[in-house]
Amino acid sequence: MPKKIVVIPGDGIGKEITDGAVAVLQAVDKKYKLNLDYDYYDAGGTAYDKFGVPLPEDTLKAAQQADAVLFGAVGGDKWDNVAPDLRPEKAILGLRKGLGLYANLRPVKTMDALIEYSPLKPDIVRGTDVMIVRELIGGVYFGDKCEEEDYNGTKRAWDLENYSIPEVERIVNLAMQTAQGRKGKVTSVDKANVLATSRLWRRTAAQVAAKYPDVKMDNMYVDNCAMQLAINPTRFDVIVTGNLFGDILSDEAAVLGGSIGLMPSASIGEQTSLYEPIHGSAPDIAGKGIANPLGTILSAAMLLRYSLQADEAADAIEKAVKDVLSQGYRTADLYSEGFKKVNTEQMTQAVIANL
Amino acid sequence: MPKKIVVIPGDGIGKEITDGAVAVLQAVDKKYKLNLDYDYYDAGGTAYDKFGVPLPEDTLKAAQQADAVLFGAVGGDKWDNVAPDLRPEKAILGLRKGLGLYANLRPVKTMDALIEYSPLKPDIVRGTDVMIVRELIGGVYFGDKCEEEDYNGTKRAWDLENYSIPEVERIVNLAMQTAQGRKGKVTSVDKANVLATSRLWRRTAAQVAAKYPDVKMDNMYVDNCAMQLAINPTRFDVIVTGNLFGDILSDEAAVLGGSIGLMPSASIGEQTSLYEPIHGSAPDIAGKGIANPLGTILSAAMLLRYSLQADEAADAIEKAVKDVLSQGYRTADLYSEGFKKVNTEQMTQAVIANL
Ligand SMILES: CC(C)[C@H](C(=O)O)[C@@H](O)C(=O)O
Ligand SMILES: CC(C)[C@H](C(=O)O)[C@@H](O)C(=O)O
Repeated sequence: MPKKIVVIPGDGIGKEITDGAVAVLQAVDKKYKLNLDYDYYDAGGTAYDKFGVPLPEDTLKAAQQADAVLFGAVGGDKWDNVAPDLRPEKAILGLRKGLGLYANLRPVKTMDALIEYSPLKPDIVRGTDVMIVRELIGGVYFGDKCEEEDYNGTKRAWDLENYSIPEVERIVNLAMQTAQGRKGKVTSVDKANVLATSRLWRRTAAQVAAKYPDVKMDNMYVDNCAMQLAINPTRFDVIVTGNLFGDILSDEAAVLGGSIGLMPSASIGEQTSLYEPIHGSAPDIAGKGIANPLGTILSAAMLLRYSLQADEAADAIEKAVKDVLSQGYRTADLYSEGFKKVNTEQMTQAVIANL
Repeated sequence: MPKKIVVIPGDGIGKEITDGAVAVLQAVDKKYKLNLDYDYYDAGGTAYDKFGVPLPEDTLKAAQQADAVLFGAVGGDKWDNVAPDLRPEKAILGLRKGLGLYANLRPVKTMDALIEYSPLKPDIVRGTDVMIVRELIGGVYFGDKCEEEDYNGTKRAWDLENYSIPEVERIVNLAMQTAQGRKGKVTSVDKANVLATSRLWRRTAAQVAAKYPDVKMDNMYVDNCAMQLAINPTRFDVIVTGNLFGDILSDEAAVLGGSIGLMPSASIGEQTSLYEPIHGSAPDIAGKGIANPLGTILSAAMLLRYSLQADEAADAIEKAVKDVLSQGYRTADLYSEGFKKVNTEQMTQAVIANL
């Protein structure tokens, strides 16, 4: 039976970058006989324009029944005045909840060929190889929220940050297992000097860690982590943290590590998992065919590895991406003199040629 | 009548760095006839060891009655096993609440003489001059917190993030006024695509901003801000944000801007304000007399400026600090070959000699 991949291009450059990734998947499919099959669905502002909602039920249902989801990007100024509950980003939040995507894995690896794109000095960033494991369907993101008059008669808004022991156990277990396949080191990030949720998090993480004697765990406050990522990024192997801290730290890490256009992510669910580049929908360059497809292509490699256990094919894609960069191919976002400037389609073909 | 300054050295290097700052204050006092008077009080682990509490009532009362408070630093591994409510950091949280210190001002300025200490490439960081205005007595820091069984019978912890309109108005007004004395630009940072508190924050900030036609305001998501600080720090003038985001972003900004040992802060209250360096208590080097006193000395300059309106004296200190750095004086944290290595006391005397 074919493996069903639901492709959700979304908005802006979403179409061109998922086209690139699908072309690469089709090429490895030929070589490694993966038997992949693709269905396309709408989400984000595009879906809102067509159906009045950012996440149509058909899209969610198809995603739930798929073997894996490849996601582009959503959002754009165009929908700035849409009601909060109907904004494009509700599509990705809805998919996370609807698919139970409890963990977001974001590798940040500084390739030597791209070290110049990091804002950090080369001596600091060289060798950076961090995997951020972010809890994705809990915390203040999905806690109760409201706005009403408080006892003083003034307006006040509330958001409930919260974590349960099983939620923390699940994500820390995944981080520990991830570290076992890497350098065996986990840094658990919280704000235990202030938050009750962080104290429960830290206590639970210690209990989980005790079950993995081959992994070393340390704890770090989130403010310190924001500093250490900038001055000492190579000290990290796996970072595990909650939804909100993970949102901030993974974006910081991505940009410090080098080009954000290259960074993939995997959102792991109990059944289906979802894969997307970490960059946004870049409406300013949408439709021009110049977007960098590599973040999405590397996300497709993660899809093969995590959802289809097709490690060989995943390795081939990752190696091909390294090769095209060493060969000097650059999309506009990374271009500087002396390199070969290519558009989305040409970059995609260059990757395929290197498979 | 003399101006009463309550000095709270705290733990670790707190004593040596506040000694340095007081020596500098005494020197400017002579020159500018400020009529300053000092009282010393305990807080943090030191207070816990003596009195069983991190913030003795005497300390809080004296601080409330002072014209200004000069604070060193608190904390250390030594108190790791103390109950959460008695930890050293409760001293600073208690002072913030007890003095109503609603705004934390943290200037991050990259001096050309120190540009090499930034982890960022010089071309990116040169000219960085950001003032972070962090709300300090609201948000999830002081919202209700608890831990109990949830409806499933599993343990869950909660922290209530919350902001009222008046709280947001007060801090955004201060940010706007701060920007008027600078480049006239405020970036309000929130997570309005996810949090109800952030939507209230963003709406209220827009209303406040409308009263300041001479200031330009824009909004930014916190994850994007964590990125922009790293790749484009010179785009910022004033950043205004809530307590938790401010904690993370101000530490990130401080370390990206250059040496954290040099960064001062002012915590503004309705009556008394408090001044402290942003670095910690560094127990590993405490008592050795080698700590960098410049962050505390620059905090003392902020004290003169904000609490005593002694702008001339504040300017003199800030200029003297610039001068000693240009003259090549460096404490151990900033030392490299070719510079004049000095200890805490010598650095302090060098500043005084340059007044
Ligand atoms: C679009 C937004 C809701 C989302 C988040 O905050 O999780 C994004 O920043 C991300 O990290 O995927
Ligand atoms: C010590 C801690 C409670 C404090 C905070 O989180 O506010 C510190 O990180 C700071 O920024 O002053």
